[in-house]
Amino acid sequence: MAPIKVGIVGLGLMGGSLSLALKKHSNAYYFIGMDHNEQHCDDALKLGLVDEICTSLETLRGCDVIVLSIPVDGILSIAQELGPLDPSCTVIDLGSTKEKISLSIPSDIRENFVAAHPMTGTEKFGPTAALEDLYTGKVVVLCDLEKSGEYQQNVAKKLFTDIGMNLVCMGSKEHDRHAAFISHMPHAVSYALANSVMAQEDSKSIVALAGGGFKDMSRIAKSSPNMWEDIFRQNKSNVLKAIHSFQSELKKCQKMVENEEWETLNEWMREANTLHDILD
Amino acid sequence: MAPIKVGIVGLGLMGGSLSLALKKHSNAYYFIGMDHNEQHCDDALKLGLVDEICTSLETLRGCDVIVLSIPVDGILSIAQELGPLDPSCTVIDLGSTKEKISLSIPSDIRENFVAAHPMTGTEKFGPTAALEDLYTGKVVVLCDLEKSGEYQQNVAKKLFTDIGMNLVCMGSKEHDRHAAFISHMPHAVSYALANSVMAQEDSKSIVALAGGGFKDMSRIAKSSPNMWEDIFRQNKSNVLKAIHSFQSELKKCQKMVENEEWETLNEWMREANTLHDILD
Repeated sequence: MAPIKVGIVGLGLMGGSLSLALKKHSNAYYFIGMDHNEQHCDDALKLGLVDEICTSLETLRGCDVIVLSIPVDGILSIAQELGPLDPSCTVIDLGSTKEKISLSIPSDIRENFVAAHPMTGTEKFGPTAALEDLYTGKVVVLCDLEKSGEYQQNVAKKLFTDIGMNLVCMGSKEHDRHAAFISHMPHAVSYALANSVMAQEDSKSIVALAGGGFKDMSRIAKSSPNMWEDIFRQNKSNVLKAIHSFQSELKKCQKMVENEEWETLNEWMREANTLHDILD
Repeated sequence: MAPIKVGIVGLGLMGGSLSLALKKHSNAYYFIGMDHNEQHCDDALKLGLVDEICTSLETLRGCDVIVLSIPVDGILSIAQELGPLDPSCTVIDLGSTKEKISLSIPSDIRENFVAAHPMTGTEKFGPTAALEDLYTGKVVVLCDLEKSGEYQQNVAKKLFTDIGMNLVCMGSKEHDRHAAFISHMPHAVSYALANSVMAQEDSKSIVALAGGGFKDMSRIAKSSPNMWEDIFRQNKSNVLKAIHSFQSELKKCQKMVENEEWETLNEWMREANTLHDILD
């Protein structure tokens, strides 16, 4: 049987990990990588993330599945040049915001496209950050799936199920609102936490004391500024709403401490504890 | 050789884990527990965290080492009743804020006392939360150590070193400022994050999407409200300063997103990335 050709545009954490996960699941795949960063191309070949590197969209169009694991602005731009595509070609984008992407895909390739957002990642980036089990047991959100062709829906569902992911379907608008709260705003918070500690006179000796709590909360402050600039730009209004909502909650806490309203503060913390009931 | 008697006041995560860690290191110890919560006493006996339960300070006074692993207000109050103590008795308190404790210990037992803060914990509490390796490889801050007797300094240093901790000495005032940034404010942030997400209409489906970032950042929002009410109360002014400093940083981020100052935002995130250089 001929191998299934998978083109991966963007050989970083997400693209590289997808290749490793698919390889682990089956040896039926042949991977063709594309990345504007030559070092990433070399590393991806050396690490065995891809079987060959290509530089032309023409080669990419010959793939059965094309994965776009690049920042959203890159996805928006490549989507304009990608067509025409064979009716059996499936394009899956892994962008972190979905509405703009979903709305901007040219209609002649709309059915080829599946807009997906795997809710996973680490603070690391580049091909060397790739992990075989990054996707295992995690959620992938498939957006506006009714706009994808039935064949493409099935290809994408099978691919994500094969690598152990749990499928959740929703509209891209709703996704972007939810993602702002569950992912984008927490990144802003983590960056702010890191910077507020480092702005202190004696930051090194403060950090020397770091226990698990601070380490956990500042981990994602190590994430790629380029990727997150792009996400904050693409999801600006939802991110601002989420930051505002967070600020109001923190302000409540600040006021309760200031006014020594200890019972109300205790109650407020007890409310936060109930997150436990809906999260693992 | 007679066993070393260790009295543990407060049979929760910290006290219980200390017992497990000491037991792992040596079988020379005999543990006497005290807790106003009867269920905790029963659980601690059943789990083998302590060898007996006592209810009188008199029994406690007969111990070689007394560990106070209770909230700060409890430490402040028991310190007033604990004396007189034998010159060879060492009292180690594990309170999360240190200045008030250090200042309030009666002078006749000041040399018996060592004010310590192990920079470790989990969001769980009670005897069932105890972990043998909670302290391993973590930092313990010893405060105002020059006020402790030389004998007691050595006992405390040996005890913490035996269970694999790294010692850091500093003044209690400085400790409280540092702890506000590295631990107390991040807890306020995590509680606020949990509450701001749960305040959303569709919080369950938001949380269903949670990846590692949100899980990490909301983990400590599951911490004990009673313990944290006490900490926020004891370290009020430092906590408010740290919250304020954090709020300013987040406000910067908010303004940059609002005004679409993407380059400056990228730079600000790059600054946050440098935390990487001072933290593992």
